[in-house]
Formats: sequence, structure tokens, C-alpha cells
Amino acid sequence: MVRRLHRTGKKAGAMTQAMFDVCGVGNAIVDVLGKADEGFLARHALAKGTMTLVDAARIETLYAAMGPGVEMSGGSAANTLAGLASLGGRGAYIGKVADDQFGRVFAHDLRAIGVDYRSRPVAGAEAPTARCLVLVTADAQRTMQTFLGVSVTLGPDDIDPEAIGGARITYLEGYLFDREPAKAAFVKAAEIAHAAGRKVALTLSDPFCVDRHRAAFQHLVHGHVDIVFANEAEIVSLYEARDFDGAIARLRGQCEIAAVTRSGEGSVVVAGATTHTVSAEPVARVVDTTGAGDLYAAGFLYGLTQGRDLPTCGRIGSIAAAEVIGHYGARPETALARLVAARLR
Amino acid sequence: MVRRLHRTGKKAGAMTQAMFDVCGVGNAIVDVLGKADEGFLARHALAKGTMTLVDAARIETLYAAMGPGVEMSGGSAANTLAGLASLGGRGAYIGKVADDQFGRVFAHDLRAIGVDYRSRPVAGAEAPTARCLVLVTADAQRTMQTFLGVSVTLGPDDIDPEAIGGARITYLEGYLFDREPAKAAFVKAAEIAHAAGRKVALTLSDPFCVDRHRAAFQHLVHGHVDIVFANEAEIVSLYEARDFDGAIARLRGQCEIAAVTRSGEGSVVVAGATTHTVSAEPVARVVDTTGAGDLYAAGFLYGLTQGRDLPTCGRIGSIAAAEVIGHYGARPETALARLVAARLR
Repeated sequence: MVRRLHRTGKKAGAMTQAMFDVCGVGNAIVDVLGKADEGFLARHALAKGTMTLVDAARIETLYAAMGPGVEMSGGSAANTLAGLASLGGRGAYIGKVADDQFGRVFAHDLRAIGVDYRSRPVAGAEAPTARCLVLVTADAQRTMQTFLGVSVTLGPDDIDPEAIGGARITYLEGYLFDREPAKAAFVKAAEIAHAAGRKVALTLSDPFCVDRHRAAFQHLVHGHVDIVFANEAEIVSLYEARDFDGAIARLRGQCEIAAVTRSGEGSVVVAGATTHTVSAEPVARVVDTTGAGDLYAAGFLYGLTQGRDLPTCGRIGSIAAAEVIGHYGARPETALARLVAARLR
Repeated sequence: MVRRLHRTGKKAGAMTQAMFDVCGVGNAIVDVLGKADEGFLARHALAKGTMTLVDAARIETLYAAMGPGVEMSGGSAANTLAGLASLGGRGAYIGKVADDQFGRVFAHDLRAIGVDYRSRPVAGAEAPTARCLVLVTADAQRTMQTFLGVSVTLGPDDIDPEAIGGARITYLEGYLFDREPAKAAFVKAAEIAHAAGRKVALTLSDPFCVDRHRAAFQHLVHGHVDIVFANEAEIVSLYEARDFDGAIARLRGQCEIAAVTRSGEGSVVVAGATTHTVSAEPVARVVDTTGAGDLYAAGFLYGLTQGRDLPTCGRIGSIAAAEVIGHYGARPETALARLVAARLR
């Protein structure tokens, strides 16, 4: 604990002079949203509710087979930054797009909401901007097939020291953690952040990704991360635990704060010896669960940067998540700041 | 009238053996939908409710200034074909895209709903696929800024004789009628259709386009077109009439059928000496009027190809239009066939 307190600095001066509340690092993706039925998932052997990485040929096959789509900017950490902006927070984002139409869409949509997008499009990139086919079934579940394109080339050189050092919290997206250069980029970002007296947050993103890189993820969480976001499956996978409580017992004390989401059952926030249970926000009709975790993180991080207590941070996360699952798409359609002001009264 | 009856053939045999119910010819466009407030329209001198053609530089300026967007396939005639497919009709479409990401989106979305998209992407095109910024204000009005890109290069060589000759009705989009090659393409399409004993429909699309090419439009309507779609402003512009009734008086007898939409007041269908008044379908909440005219035409044309009487054709048009103005975007989100079956009972 001494190490951690020292490392995270408690430098109130540095924290208040931050340029940004949060700087996100993630896969820059344009989502292609379409409705699908169970038969479609079965025919194409898609596991409902999961995210699968696919290659260029496979995404073309699936795209040709799916129904009409709607294109929207996505990417887990970018959605979180969009949520943060909608709450009134100041954000920056690092993630790579190609110099193509989807890349321009992605960059526009972030800048249009006031997020400082720090990465330049990769000129003459061999791969296009990343795309994710988001297939939404009638039960509001989303099944994602992602072709990462140029986004996977993110490495240490893409880490912008000014943005990272100038953000109260650097937020790392676990989805990126499949390749060595991205792992090195994460460590570099964490070191810059901590040297500047900032905090580092990580979302585990995906139980399969955690499964592929368990030791490296544990090392990252235990050695470089102050705030962890995860859902039940991810945290259980991280520790190969028997159940949720077993996983929480392992995680406790390994980082300052862990916020674990449990879908309709809300979330659990663990900090030192204390545990806060946060209920889910009621939703009139769940339409599309895409972005629920991303928006929970947005609300939670916004609360932290505003100095709110942990139960309130969780509550803001729940409110933001509830908004995004009430419509198609993974970014808020309502000004979250107003929503939160009304609900927290 | 003898000319017309002869020309349109009344060849029941040919009509029943058609490959397609409708073949559309239009500008192939991807819409970029975003919310805007009145201040935005004022600052950029945009006339609410209209469609303005803009160049590449202007669309970049407006795009950079607007809020986050959602990309959806659009194009007036293409939206009509999407509506026709949703009603259960068989459609084909002719309209040009570039070999770029938006072009692939446009092609995919048409094919995914079963429309036979006849045009190949233009390889190495100097201009990209057309884009339209659709700015939706809180009053559900849409203001459109269109950069036509490669779509304006449509000419007589792009008219597919097989699709046109094989469709019960060829549907021409007035928006295209700004350039000489497109005018020649329209005449060629009409001649092929009539030679095959088919019908030709035209939508006037835009009062300003009608204003720019009044004589040519009148010549087209009077000489080559059997079915005309228009709204009040367009039909008044076509004849520089004092009012709606004056315009209808001029139009009557110049074509077999004219269907004129009047927004919330429904539509008027004129055929020979008869006039049918069709009421608008109730809508719980008008969200975005984009595509209302396109979907009215879809319903009307579908009714015609199914041999329904003119009031019923108008009614199907109203039902289809009501669906599309109840949500964002210009293509149906609901299976229109089911909706019509339920409402027409």
C-alpha cells in the first residue's frame, strides 16, 4: 500500500491543473449496426453476447450476409470518452484510424463532441479503419465481429506524453492487449501517468482476451493500474476463480478501486476493505446492450474526477449505462449531464 | 389520350411477366444524419426544409461544424426501392457509387433487402460516393446539404435495358435532372420502358430543381411520363401556378396519374377527370420527416403494381410515409408488408 500511495502521488496540485479529466487509449472502430435473428447467429456460428476478432475475408463474408446496417463511431474507450463529454468532462483519445472515409467519420464524431482526438490518420495504411459488425437480436443482446484493421498497429510511439501526463486519469482498453506493441504502449502510458502523479484505469474488456493473456493482465493490474473496470465473466477469468466472490477476494487490495458490473444486478465497487453495492438504474425498454460497460465506466470516471464518493461514482455509471441501452448504438443520444443532474437530486 | 393509351400498352401479358415491379433511377447517396439547432442553420445560412447542392469544399466545412453523425444509405429513389422491398415488391436500382467505403455501404444496404442493384462501383472515380448531410431540427424538419460526387456522372450508358424493360414501372428521380447526360438517360429509360409496354413514373423531388429546368421538366412530364409524384411546392413550381388548385388544373390530363403529397394534410391523386383525396396516417410522434415523400411513392407504386385502386395506393403510401417519419432515417425500420396488412384490414 505504501508503494501505491507513493506512486499515485496524492498531489492535489497536479490533479487540479490537469488539461483533461480522462485520456482514453483504445481501438478506434466504426460500428456497423444491424438487426439479426437467432438463425443468423446459428448459421454463422456466432456466440451470442461475445466479441470475436475476425480477419478481412471473414468480415466481408459476414457483412455480405447480414441485413442493412447503420454506421456509427464506436470503439470501447472512445464510447467512454463520448460519455464523459456528454457528462461535461474534458477528454482526450488515442487510437489509430486509416486515412479513409470511416477514419474521417470516427475522427469527426469524437471532435464534434469536444474530445481532443490526439492520433493522426495513418496515411497509406495497409489496412483500413477498424470495423465492428454489431448484430443486435430481439432480446437486445449484441454479438460483435471485429476486424481491427489499422487500429492494432498502436504501439509505444503512439502514446502522447502530453495528453497522458495532462489527464487526471488515463483509461486503457483491454481489447488492445492482444499484441506486444500495445502491451508496451500500455506500460509506457502507465509510467508517464504515474510519473505525473496521475491515475491509471483499465477495463478488462473481454473474458477471452483476459484468458489469452492472463499472466500479463494480472501483472498489468497488480503493477500498473489503480482503477479496474470489469464485468463478472472477466474478473472470474482473470483469477480463474470459482465464482464472483472468489474473484473479488483475489482482486481486493491489488488495486485502489475495482468497479465490477453485473448487468441487471448493478455493480460492486471494491476499495481496500470496503465494498459498495450499486443498484442498476431502471430502463423502460432495453433495446441494445452495446456500450453498457463503456458508459458505466464513463459515469464512474466522471464521478471520480469530480471528487464524488464511490457509491455516487457507481450511480452515475448506472445512469449513463441505462441511457445507452435504451436505444440502438453505443454512444449517448441524450445530454448525460442533464440526466444525471435530474436523477441525483 | 390515344397516344398515351397506345404507348403504355395495356399489355397485361407483358406486365405479368415482369422481372421487377419497379426499377428506380436516382442519385446513390449515403446520408450523414445529425441533430442541429436553429442557430446552426442560421450561422451557416441553411434554408430549413430544403435540399441544397454543395461542392466538396462546402460539405467538408459543414461536416466539420456539425455534431456527431450516423451514416445510413439514402438517396430518394433508393429509399423508395427500400420501401418497396419492405412491402414485398421486387425492385431494381440504377445509380452510381465510387469504389470506396461509402459506396460499399450503399450497395450492401440495397442488396441486403433484396433490391437488384444494377450499377457497378466506378473504379478509380475522380469523385467519391455522394454524401448528404441531413440536419434534423427539434421540430422534426430535415435540412439537406448534398455533395453529389460520382453520382452525377450518370448518363445514357448507365441505363440498363434489361432492368428497365423488365420492370412494370420505371421510377425516375427528379434530383438527377440537373445535367444533360442525366436528362438524356431519363429519355432513354422512358423510351425503353414504353417500347416494352411498361409505365414510367417521375418524382419532381425538389422545387428548386424544377425551377431551374421548368421547360425540360414539363416536356418530360407531358411527353414521357405516365405517373407523376410531387409535393405542393414542386407542382406549383412546375406550372408557376398561383396555387395548388391552379397547378392541379394544369397537370390534369398531362399524365395518367398524378399523386401530390401535402404533408400532414395527406395527398391528392388525380387521374383523368377524377380526383381522390387521401388522408394522412396518424403518427404518434414525428421525429424526422426525411424520406416521407420517398416512402409515399414506395407505397403508391407497390399498390399500383399489385393492381390496387388509386385510393388504396394512396393509403399504402400514407402508411409507409407514417412509418418512416416516426424515427430517424429515411428507410423503414419495420416490415411495411405487415404494417399495411394490419392497417388495411
